[in-house]
Amino acid sequence: MESRLIDSLVSTPETADAFSDAAVIGAMLEFEVALAAAEAEYGIIPPAAADAIASAATVEHFDAADIARQARTQATPAIPFVRALTARVRGIDATSARFVHWGATSQDVVDTALVLCLSRATAGIEAKHRALAARLIDLSEAHASTMMLGRTLLQPATPITFGLKVALWVGGICRAWRSAAHALSEAQVLQCGGAAGTLAPLGEQGLDVQRAVARRLGLTCPSAPWHAERGRLAAVVNSLAVYVCALAKMAGDVSLLMQAEVGEVAEQGGGSSTMPHKLNPSSSAIVLAAADRAPGLAASMIGAMRQEHERAVGGWHMEAPVVRDIVVTTGSAVTAALELVSGLRVSPAAMRANIDATGGVIFAERLTFLLAAGIGRDEAARLVTEAIASARESGRSFGDEVRSSPVLSTMLPSAVLADLENPASYLGSAERFRQQVLADVRSSIPA
Amino acid sequence: MESRLIDSLVSTPETADAFSDAAVIGAMLEFEVALAAAEAEYGIIPPAAADAIASAATVEHFDAADIARQARTQATPAIPFVRALTARVRGIDATSARFVHWGATSQDVVDTALVLCLSRATAGIEAKHRALAARLIDLSEAHASTMMLGRTLLQPATPITFGLKVALWVGGICRAWRSAAHALSEAQVLQCGGAAGTLAPLGEQGLDVQRAVARRLGLTCPSAPWHAERGRLAAVVNSLAVYVCALAKMAGDVSLLMQAEVGEVAEQGGGSSTMPHKLNPSSSAIVLAAADRAPGLAASMIGAMRQEHERAVGGWHMEAPVVRDIVVTTGSAVTAALELVSGLRVSPAAMRANIDATGGVIFAERLTFLLAAGIGRDEAARLVTEAIASARESGRSFGDEVRSSPVLSTMLPSAVLADLENPASYLGSAERFRQQVLADVRSSIPA
Amino acid sequence: MESRLIDSLVSTPETADAFSDAAVIGAMLEFEVALAAAEAEYGIIPPAAADAIASAATVEHFDAADIARQARTQATPAIPFVRALTARVRGIDATSARFVHWGATSQDVVDTALVLCLSRATAGIEAKHRALAARLIDLSEAHASTMMLGRTLLQPATPITFGLKVALWVGGICRAWRSAAHALSEAQVLQCGGAAGTLAPLGEQGLDVQRAVARRLGLTCPSAPWHAERGRLAAVVNSLAVYVCALAKMAGDVSLLMQAEVGEVAEQGGGSSTMPHKLNPSSSAIVLAAADRAPGLAASMIGAMRQEHERAVGGWHMEAPVVRDIVVTTGSAVTAALELVSGLRVSPAAMRANIDATGGVIFAERLTFLLAAGIGRDEAARLVTEAIASARESGRSFGDEVRSSPVLSTMLPSAVLADLENPASYLGSAERFRQQVLADVRSSIPA
Amino acid sequence: MESRLIDSLVSTPETADAFSDAAVIGAMLEFEVALAAAEAEYGIIPPAAADAIASAATVEHFDAADIARQARTQATPAIPFVRALTARVRGIDATSARFVHWGATSQDVVDTALVLCLSRATAGIEAKHRALAARLIDLSEAHASTMMLGRTLLQPATPITFGLKVALWVGGICRAWRSAAHALSEAQVLQCGGAAGTLAPLGEQGLDVQRAVARRLGLTCPSAPWHAERGRLAAVVNSLAVYVCALAKMAGDVSLLMQAEVGEVAEQGGGSSTMPHKLNPSSSAIVLAAADRAPGLAASMIGAMRQEHERAVGGWHMEAPVVRDIVVTTGSAVTAALELVSGLRVSPAAMRANIDATGGVIFAERLTFLLAAGIGRDEAARLVTEAIASARESGRSFGDEVRSSPVLSTMLPSAVLADLENPASYLGSAERFRQQVLADVRSSIPA
Repeated sequence: MESRLIDSLVSTPETADAFSDAAVIGAMLEFEVALAAAEAEYGIIPPAAADAIASAATVEHFDAADIARQARTQATPAIPFVRALTARVRGIDATSARFVHWGATSQDVVDTALVLCLSRATAGIEAKHRALAARLIDLSEAHASTMMLGRTLLQPATPITFGLKVALWVGGICRAWRSAAHALSEAQVLQCGGAAGTLAPLGEQGLDVQRAVARRLGLTCPSAPWHAERGRLAAVVNSLAVYVCALAKMAGDVSLLMQAEVGEVAEQGGGSSTMPHKLNPSSSAIVLAAADRAPGLAASMIGAMRQEHERAVGGWHMEAPVVRDIVVTTGSAVTAALELVSGLRVSPAAMRANIDATGGVIFAERLTFLLAAGIGRDEAARLVTEAIASARESGRSFGDEVRSSPVLSTMLPSAVLADLENPASYLGSAERFRQQVLADVRSSIPA
Repeated sequence: MESRLIDSLVSTPETADAFSDAAVIGAMLEFEVALAAAEAEYGIIPPAAADAIASAATVEHFDAADIARQARTQATPAIPFVRALTARVRGIDATSARFVHWGATSQDVVDTALVLCLSRATAGIEAKHRALAARLIDLSEAHASTMMLGRTLLQPATPITFGLKVALWVGGICRAWRSAAHALSEAQVLQCGGAAGTLAPLGEQGLDVQRAVARRLGLTCPSAPWHAERGRLAAVVNSLAVYVCALAKMAGDVSLLMQAEVGEVAEQGGGSSTMPHKLNPSSSAIVLAAADRAPGLAASMIGAMRQEHERAVGGWHMEAPVVRDIVVTTGSAVTAALELVSGLRVSPAAMRANIDATGGVIFAERLTFLLAAGIGRDEAARLVTEAIASARESGRSFGDEVRSSPVLSTMLPSAVLADLENPASYLGSAERFRQQVLADVRSSIPA
Repeated sequence: MESRLIDSLVSTPETADAFSDAAVIGAMLEFEVALAAAEAEYGIIPPAAADAIASAATVEHFDAADIARQARTQATPAIPFVRALTARVRGIDATSARFVHWGATSQDVVDTALVLCLSRATAGIEAKHRALAARLIDLSEAHASTMMLGRTLLQPATPITFGLKVALWVGGICRAWRSAAHALSEAQVLQCGGAAGTLAPLGEQGLDVQRAVARRLGLTCPSAPWHAERGRLAAVVNSLAVYVCALAKMAGDVSLLMQAEVGEVAEQGGGSSTMPHKLNPSSSAIVLAAADRAPGLAASMIGAMRQEHERAVGGWHMEAPVVRDIVVTTGSAVTAALELVSGLRVSPAAMRANIDATGGVIFAERLTFLLAAGIGRDEAARLVTEAIASARESGRSFGDEVRSSPVLSTMLPSAVLADLENPASYLGSAERFRQQVLADVRSSIPA
Repeated sequence: MESRLIDSLVSTPETADAFSDAAVIGAMLEFEVALAAAEAEYGIIPPAAADAIASAATVEHFDAADIARQARTQATPAIPFVRALTARVRGIDATSARFVHWGATSQDVVDTALVLCLSRATAGIEAKHRALAARLIDLSEAHASTMMLGRTLLQPATPITFGLKVALWVGGICRAWRSAAHALSEAQVLQCGGAAGTLAPLGEQGLDVQRAVARRLGLTCPSAPWHAERGRLAAVVNSLAVYVCALAKMAGDVSLLMQAEVGEVAEQGGGSSTMPHKLNPSSSAIVLAAADRAPGLAASMIGAMRQEHERAVGGWHMEAPVVRDIVVTTGSAVTAALELVSGLRVSPAAMRANIDATGGVIFAERLTFLLAAGIGRDEAARLVTEAIASARESGRSFGDEVRSSPVLSTMLPSAVLADLENPASYLGSAERFRQQVLADVRSSIPA
C-alpha cells in the first residue's frame, strides 16, 4: 500500500521516488548486468549469458512486494531478487541462468544499488542547493546596506545589516554542502567482494572484473570491499544532517523575524484551516521539521558502524532505510528552503522601526566604549547604566537622555553625541565580513 | 510509487499498513465524523450535516497523493484534506458542507488520526509480544536444569542454566513491554482544542463536545488539549525503543551462541546467496537491525519536544513519521523475535561440552572461596592461579591438577575436591532467581 | 585536576557533587560494609570481619585518582578499589581481610554505588521540582483571567489566558516528573549477583544475603541480578530527558515572550559583557542548553542496552557517565527553571497591547463561525478574508471594518458585532481546561 | 570536588586535563592577552595596558570554582572571568584595567578558548593514532599469509587472511582519522566579533585586529565571526564519533576472536575481582564503551546547530561540554586501542584449527562455482547441499564426502578435488586487496 501522506511534511515525491521499489530493483539489475558484462569481457562467463541477463533486466517484471516479503527470511532482499532474476534469465536461455550473480554476494548487489540510488537522489538536491545559494547571494547583495537589529539571546544587541545576516546563512549552508558533497563523492564506490570479501570465485581475475564493473556503473573502484567498513556512509548521513541544520539556522531566523511583533520578513506562507487571518511560516516549518529529524538519523548510523567481522549481523541490515531517510529529509528541507527564499518579502522599514523602538539603548555599548578609554570601563558602564535607567523612566530616547545629562554631555564632542544613535555609523566591519563570506561562497561553487 | 523494498528488513506489511495512506485518511475521517456527530448531539450543527459528513467519509474517494502534495504548502495535510471532505459533502448536500471540521483546528484531526493509527498498529504488536513471552516462559521451564557457561565480557565465567538465561531475557522484555503498554495507554488521548486550544468556537459547550468525541472514538478525553505538550508521544517512542533493545539483548545472545565455534543454539535461520553451507541468524539480524535504528528515533522525538507557544513550528511537523518509524521498527523486531524463538533449537550437549572444554578453570573461583576462609583471599588466589598455570602447562584438567597438588590436595576434604568441577553443585541461586523472574513475568501478563 | 568551569552552564555543584570521587567511593564502601554485615548476620563470614571492614570504610583513606587510573587496566574501578579496601582492612586485622567483597563481583559494587549516587542526586532535584510546581500553580492562579495572544507557528492565533499557558507548562512538567519519579523508584534496586549472577559462592544462602544487603542499603531486592538487563537505567535516562524537555517547553516560551518586541514577561535575567542595556534570558538559556544535551544522552543509553550474555563488553562500561550526565543536566535545568519562575515579571498590559496591535484580525475566525452557520464556511471565509484585506488597506481595525461594511454589518446583530473584538468573550473553555489541568497536577503531588 | 572515578572508563587524565579549569582559564587568558596585544599594535589601546593585561594573566590567581558559580547567573563564564581579570589588572595598573576585553564579546573568549583547548587535546590523540596505525600496518604485514575463517553474520564463510582483516581495520580507522583531522583543522578558527559580530567598537580597524589576534594565537582568521554558525564544531564531533566507531569495529572483532571458543587472538587483558582464571578483553571493552557513547554526542551537537539570530539562547550554551565529551571519549578509545594492539597475541594455529573444525563445508561455495559453469547454479547448489548433508551425517569431511561421491567425484578432475579444502588456493584477491589498502593508508600518513 502507498504511504506518502504520513511522510508528506518530511519528503518530496522527487527524492522519495529515487528509493522506490522500481528504483531499487532497477539499480540492483544494473549491478547484475554490469557484473555479467564485466565477467564476459574477461572470459569468465559466456557473452551470451551476459546478453541474456541484460535482456532479462526489465524492472516491471519483478514483484517487489514479494521480494520484500521473502527478504525477511534470509535477512537480505538479494536472495529472492537473484532467484527471481535467475528465473527470468532461464525463461530466455536456460544455460545463461547458470551465470547470474556469478561470484558476487548478497551485500554486493544491495550496497551497490544503495550507492546508485543515493547518487540519483542527491543530484536533484544539489541542483536545488545551487539555486538556493544563488538566490541568497542576490538577497545579500540587495540588502548590503539594509540595517536591522542584531539580536543575541533573542534580545536586541547592536545593529547589523540584513545583507550580513543573509551572507552568514549562505556561508553556513555552503560550508555544510561542501562537506556533504565531499562525503557523497567519497561514497560513490562499488561494492563487489564476494562471500568473504576476497572475490575468491574469480581467482586471479577479481580485480580486473571489479574495475570493469565500477567503470560500467560510473562508480569508483575501492582499494578493497567495504562490507564491514561503513565510515563512508556514516559520513554521508552526518554531513547531510549538518546541512539540514544549516538550512534550519536560516529557517529558524525567518520564523522569528516573521513573528507579527517583529514583522521584518514574511514567507509566501501558508494558511490555517480555521483562522482566515493567518499567514504561517510553512516553509520554515518544513525545514525545521527536517532539522528535528536529522540528529537521530546521524546517531542511528554512527551507532551501527561497529559491524562484526567480514559482514555484520544487524548493523548493516538497518542502513538502507536510514540513508534513505536522511536523503529524503534533506530533499524536503532544501525544497522548502528554496521556496522560502524565493517568496521572501523583506521590510527594511520594519527593520528600522524595530531599531528605533529600542529607544536607542542598543547604543549603550557604543557610548561605553567612547567613554571608557577616558574614564575606564567600570565607570563608563556605571554612567551608561544610569542613563539607560533615566531614559526608561523619562520616556526619552537614550540619546536625548545622554545629550541632556549635565555629566555625560560634556564628556564627548557634540558631533559624536549627535551621531550616537545612528546605526549606520556603528556597523563596524559588517560590510567587509559580508563581502568576505560571499567571496568564499562564490569560490566554492563550480561554474 | 510503492517503496517497501528498501524497508523490508525493518518493517512488516502488517504494521506498515496501519500507517498507509488509506489508514491515515480513514482515521482522519473518523475524527471528522465523530466531531460532527458530537456537535449534532449538542445542537451545534444540524443532524443532517452530521449524516452527510458520515456519508461522505469513504476513504476510496480521497486522493491521498494529491493531499500529500498540497500538504507542503500549508505545512499540514489537514487543510487539503478538509477541503476535499468539504467538496465531497457539498456533493451530497450543499448546506451540510458548511459544518465540516466545525470548531476544530488542523492539528486536532492530524494528532487524533495519529493516535488512532498508533492504537491499531500496536494491537498486533501486543499480540506477538504475548506469544513471544509465552514461548520464552516455556523455553525457560524446559531448560531449568540445562547447564551452560555463564559468560562475562565474552569470556567463560561460572556456570548458569539456560533456563535462567531465558528467564532473564523474558524478564527484561516484559519489563520493557509493561512500560511501553503504559505509555501507549496514556497516549490514547483525543486531540480536540481548536485554533489556540480553547475550543472558542464552541462557546460554553467545548468540554461537552470534546467528551462526546472522545467517547465516540474510544479515546481518553484529556484535561486540556496537548497541541504543544508532547510528552505522551515521546514516552511512547522511548519506551518502544527500550522494548526493541530488550528484544535485541536476546537476539544478540542468540547470534553469539549460534556461532559455529559455540554451537549451543540455532535459529531456523536463513541461507546465503552464494554459500550453500551457511545457516545465518536471520531473525536475530532483523531484531538487531531494529535495535540499531531505535536510539536515533528516541533522540529525534525527545529533541522535538520543545514546541513553541500554542502550536509549534517544526517540532510537531516531524513527529508522525518518527512515531510511525518506531512502531514499524518494533513490529519488525517482535515478529522476528517470535520467529527466532519459535524455531530455536537448543543443544544441551554443546552447552555441556563448552563447559568441559574450559578444562575446569571456571571453577577457580569456587576453589578460591573454599580456600579463602582458611588462608585468606590473597593466598588462596595465589595458589589457585598457580594451579591454573600448571594445568595449562600440563594439559591436565584444573581439578586433576588441584587433586594432584601436594599443597592443595591436603587443604580440603577429598569429597569436596572430587566435586570441584561439577557445575550442578556450583549454581548457587540460579534456579530460585529463575523462578522469581518467571513469577514476576506471569503476574504482569493479563489472563 | 578540577574541571567544573567547562560544565558550568550544564551543571550545579550540588548535583555534580553527588557523583564526585568522594561520593562514589563512599557509596562503594557502603555496599561492601552492608555485604559484610549481611554475610556476618548469616554466619558466612566472622562478625569481626564485618566490623573490621566497617572500620576501614573511611572515604578519605582512598586515593580515587589512583583507583581511576588502575581501573582502565581491568575495565572496572572495582578491582583496584577492592584491593585498596583489602589493604586497609589488613592494616586493622589481617584475618578479616580475607572476607572483603566476599562472593560479590565487580559489577555488584559499581552498579549498587551508581544506584545510591543516583538516589542522592535526585532527592535534591525532586525538592526543586516541587518548589517549581508550587510556584507555577500560584502563577497560573494569579493569571487566570490575564488575556494574551495564543500563538501558533509563531503567529497570532485566537486569545488565551496566561493562566492557561502556565497551567499547560506545569501540566507537562508534572506529567514528565511522574514518569521520571516512577523510573527512579524502579531503579532503586540492589545489584548483588556474584560472578555470573548466581551468587554461587554463597551456596544456599544467596537470597538471604541479598535481601539483607538490600535492607541495609534501603534498596529494593530484585527478582534476580540485572547485570545485563539495563532497562531500568535506560528508563531513568529517557524519562529525565523528557522532563528536561518539558522544562524547556516553558523556557522556550519565556525566551520568546521576553523578546523586546513582545515584552510580555521578563526573567530576572543576566547581563552582557559589553552591552549595558542587555537583559538576557539567562535562566531560559540554561534550561534550553540542558534540553539540547538530553536527547543524545537518551540515544547513547538506549544504544548500549544490547549487552552480551551475563555481563557485557562495552555497553555497561559507559553507563555511569551517561547516567551522571543526565542527572547533572536535569539538576541544572530544574535549578534554572526555578530561578526563572521565581524571578518572572509578567506584564498583562503588554499582553493586552499585543492583542490590540493585531488590529482585531485574530477575531476573523470568530466572525467566520458566526457567519458560517448561515451562509456556509466557504462564503463566510471569503467575506472575512475580504474584510481583513480592507482593514489592512484602510488602517482601520478589523471590527470597525466589519461594522462599516454594508454587507457584513447587516448579517449579525449589532450587539454581537460590537463585542466582536472582545477577547474575554472568545476564550471558550480556557478557564475550565486550566482548572482541570491544575486539578491533575495537584492530585499528583504527594502532600 | 574531583570527579574522575565515574569517568575512569571513558577518559584518560591526559585528555581530560586539556579541559581542566586551569586549561580553560589559561586559554581564556591567552585570548585576552592576544587581543590586547593586537589592539595595542594598532594603537587602539595603550601598549602599557597590553603589558599589564599580560602580567595579570596568571592562571593560578583565578578562582575557577567561583567563576563557574557566577557563570550561571549570566549564562556565560566570560562575564565573571572578565571581571576577575579586570580586578587583577587594576591591581597592577588602574588605567590599564579600562582596556580589558576591549571590543570583544563573551562568546569571543569562550569560543576561542574552546578551540585552543580542542587543539591541545587532539594533538595527543593524533600521536596515539599514528602509533596505532603504524602497529597495525606491521601486524598486517606479519600476517599477510596467515589464513583464517572469514565470518559473515557471525557464521563461517570462505577463508581470508588475518593480514587482510587487519588491513581493513586500519584502512577504516585511517579513513575516519583523515576526515576528523580535516574537521579539526577547519575548526582551528579564531572567534572575535564583538557584541553582534560586527566588531563595531573597533571601527575601521576590526579586520586588522582580528587578523593580528589570530596570528598571535596560531589560529585561522575566519571570513566572518561564527557566533551562530556552528557547522565546524558539529563536523568535529561527528567525525570523531565516526573515528571512535572505526576503532570499535576492530575492538569488537578482537573481543569476538578472543572468545574462549574461538581463541584466535588475545589481548594482554584484565582480570576479574573474583575469578582467577579470567582474562578479559579490557581494552576492547573501553573502546566499545567509547563507541556506545559517541552517537549520542553527535546527535546532541547536530541538534543544537539551529542557533537563533546573532547569538543563541541555549544551543551554544551546551556545546563546550559536548565537545569536551567527544574529545575525551576519543582519547580514551585511541589509548585503549593502542594498548590492545600493542599487547595482542595472535594464534595462527587456532585460526587454522577453526578452519579445519568446519569440516570443509566452507568450501561448498568453491565446489558450487566449479560445478556451476557446467551444470548450472541451481543443480550445482542442489548436489553440494546434498553433499553437505551427507558429510554432516557421516561425520566425514566435506572433501572426503565429495571425493567418495559416485556423482560428484566424476564431475571434476581429481587434482581439483584433492585441493578442494585448501584455503590457500581459495583466497582470491585477498593479498592484492590487502596491499592496496595498506598503500592507501601509507600515502595518507605524513612523513
